[in-house]
Amino acid sequence: MKCAVDIEARDVEEMYINIDPIQAGGRLTADAMKAAISFGDGYSVCDNCRNPPRLDYIKNPPIAQFHADLAGWLNMDTARVVPGARRGFQAVASTYVEKGDPVIVTALAHYTEFMAVEAAGGIPLEIPKDTANHITPDAAAEKIEAVIREFSRAPPLLFIDHVDYQFGNVHDVAGIAKVAHQYDIPVLVGAYTVGIMPVDGKALGADFVVGSGHKSMAAPAPSGVLATTAEHAGRVFRTTQAKGDVTGRTFGLKEVEMMGCTLMGVTVVGMMASFPHVRERVQHWETEVAHSQAVVDALLSIEGTKVLSDSPRQHTLTRIDTRESFDAVAQQHKKRGFFLSGELKKRGITGVIPGSTRVWKFNTFGLTEKQIRHVGEAFVGVARDNGLNII
Amino acid sequence: MKCAVDIEARDVEEMYINIDPIQAGGRLTADAMKAAISFGDGYSVCDNCRNPPRLDYIKNPPIAQFHADLAGWLNMDTARVVPGARRGFQAVASTYVEKGDPVIVTALAHYTEFMAVEAAGGIPLEIPKDTANHITPDAAAEKIEAVIREFSRAPPLLFIDHVDYQFGNVHDVAGIAKVAHQYDIPVLVGAYTVGIMPVDGKALGADFVVGSGHKSMAAPAPSGVLATTAEHAGRVFRTTQAKGDVTGRTFGLKEVEMMGCTLMGVTVVGMMASFPHVRERVQHWETEVAHSQAVVDALLSIEGTKVLSDSPRQHTLTRIDTRESFDAVAQQHKKRGFFLSGELKKRGITGVIPGSTRVWKFNTFGLTEKQIRHVGEAFVGVARDNGLNII
Repeated sequence: MKCAVDIEARDVEEMYINIDPIQAGGRLTADAMKAAISFGDGYSVCDNCRNPPRLDYIKNPPIAQFHADLAGWLNMDTARVVPGARRGFQAVASTYVEKGDPVIVTALAHYTEFMAVEAAGGIPLEIPKDTANHITPDAAAEKIEAVIREFSRAPPLLFIDHVDYQFGNVHDVAGIAKVAHQYDIPVLVGAYTVGIMPVDGKALGADFVVGSGHKSMAAPAPSGVLATTAEHAGRVFRTTQAKGDVTGRTFGLKEVEMMGCTLMGVTVVGMMASFPHVRERVQHWETEVAHSQAVVDALLSIEGTKVLSDSPRQHTLTRIDTRESFDAVAQQHKKRGFFLSGELKKRGITGVIPGSTRVWKFNTFGLTEKQIRHVGEAFVGVARDNGLNII
Repeated sequence: MKCAVDIEARDVEEMYINIDPIQAGGRLTADAMKAAISFGDGYSVCDNCRNPPRLDYIKNPPIAQFHADLAGWLNMDTARVVPGARRGFQAVASTYVEKGDPVIVTALAHYTEFMAVEAAGGIPLEIPKDTANHITPDAAAEKIEAVIREFSRAPPLLFIDHVDYQFGNVHDVAGIAKVAHQYDIPVLVGAYTVGIMPVDGKALGADFVVGSGHKSMAAPAPSGVLATTAEHAGRVFRTTQAKGDVTGRTFGLKEVEMMGCTLMGVTVVGMMASFPHVRERVQHWETEVAHSQAVVDALLSIEGTKVLSDSPRQHTLTRIDTRESFDAVAQQHKKRGFFLSGELKKRGITGVIPGSTRVWKFNTFGLTEKQIRHVGEAFVGVARDNGLNII
């Protein structure tokens, strides 16, 4: 079925249980689907844009209220929607980082944090991870000290991911923020957890919380949120000082780093439509984690399989090592590594990168009890059918 | 009807003829609607992202082909999709403008160009418009000379809008680009005309063409295109040089100013689904302009009304002065200025800012012959009913 001349309609979510690491939290809710249809047109939310003419002041649809609700929900003071988390990183880096500045990231930082620092002319420097794949406050302190020695000044910004994208491990953000604040370094918490698990920005010690709409808030892409404290809002959300030298024009309350307005239609209304559901779903985080553990347990029952993420699991994203199980099969299989994704697909499961049988990731977020059971049984079934021992 | 708990479904395009200045070119095509439903989920286009892992390499859906087609269609060498035209301005300004650099814009420049320059630390300086509200090559040359005298160096960038947002006048971009190139100044053409009328980047002398998806390519927001020449592509689309100092990680072909990838779902597939229709519709530009003129003629038949845009019209966006017609009515009317939008609404027309009766804008793009006739007759009817002379 086509949805346009040369575009095949996507039916992944209708036909399969999808355990793709980056897609699980971004599946639209039914309300977001309806919003996408209703507000698909480009500038559709601007029908009732009045003075001051800015996205976050629009009352109908209730975008202004949504901004206030977002900030409150994250326990921060001010929030703006942005075209993806990366654009939130960019806004903060562009504001705080000068050319040549050292900026602290981590050995588990998402690549978009590097892009934001690089675009601002900064030098990203990583806090090492420990042997358990954690970023610790001690390691942060050591890195900050080393950077200050080298650059003779404190870094203007520190990025830390609440949960990293590689292992899905939960890091001691509050501890790291406490260290950073001793050096007066503002802390940006990259929270791919916003919309997935409860996030309390103040409790984390965050000066900035950046979340992704399309990765974890059941919203269309590109969308995200940048929330901050009263202390920093005036700087990162500073309004334009530009003035036309000929016309004398000024541009009111337009915010420089937001390029004025950000999400004008389906993206912002999609976020809004999903928001009540997202707010509700983070309350069930313990169930999600238990589901994740159930699938990990099934995988670990396959002899030779190791979990590389924290165990027991504290998140739904898991990094698994099947070099001594599924990859041993792949060595002999006529389909090589593709046998695994192929066998899973036959069982109605997708999202494992075709060909991967060594070290790979999956995400069980949002699956039902029954789907979780099926996924676990499918892994075990594929293993058994291919001669692996179940222990 | 609600599309979510507190979000009223939008029915503007279903219930009214919409002549809003910024919404006309961004109404979705039916194919884009279908694409929005099919690719609403966050990272939905990433199902088949392989190596190198970057949006514009994805073959299914045919995003790679779309990028090539976009560049060819604009007669440029390379194109990227971006989250709105403003993010295209930002990418170019961030690349070419250093702190303190003078940057040439115009007295008719869109505010987002000022934001992009300001975010990059540049100083926006306007080429004056002439008495006919045009930006001329001579005025550009004078401004460039003045700036060079003041700053002892040539500006690193010049922004010129193919058609300005205030009057909808078509400017001599080719002439201005020729002047700028004599000083080796790269020219960014802000083309809110992309998707509305034919745009030939090379013929315009553009080093960069930036267009809006949600304003003029029948695409969901935020979306847009940044196209450039072979000469500039390597610089504005430079790939990351970042390297983890601890991990040694590098980030392949990720492009810094794009923050890696840009439009992941409904926005890019919406653009793609509309693209064949958009390519077709720009061929009918003469009809669109004739339609625009027909409505202007109707308005000019109302005694006291003036058109502030170029006359005869060469675009579908028009600035009209009704201070001596509709505003004279408003002075006496119990609904004051709101009578006009109210009367139009009764006749099934929306998009004129409620309360406006002095100087205002409208856009007839995309209306049918019959709708155009109705809009013209409606203006005349409202005027006649309120005692204005029809001449």
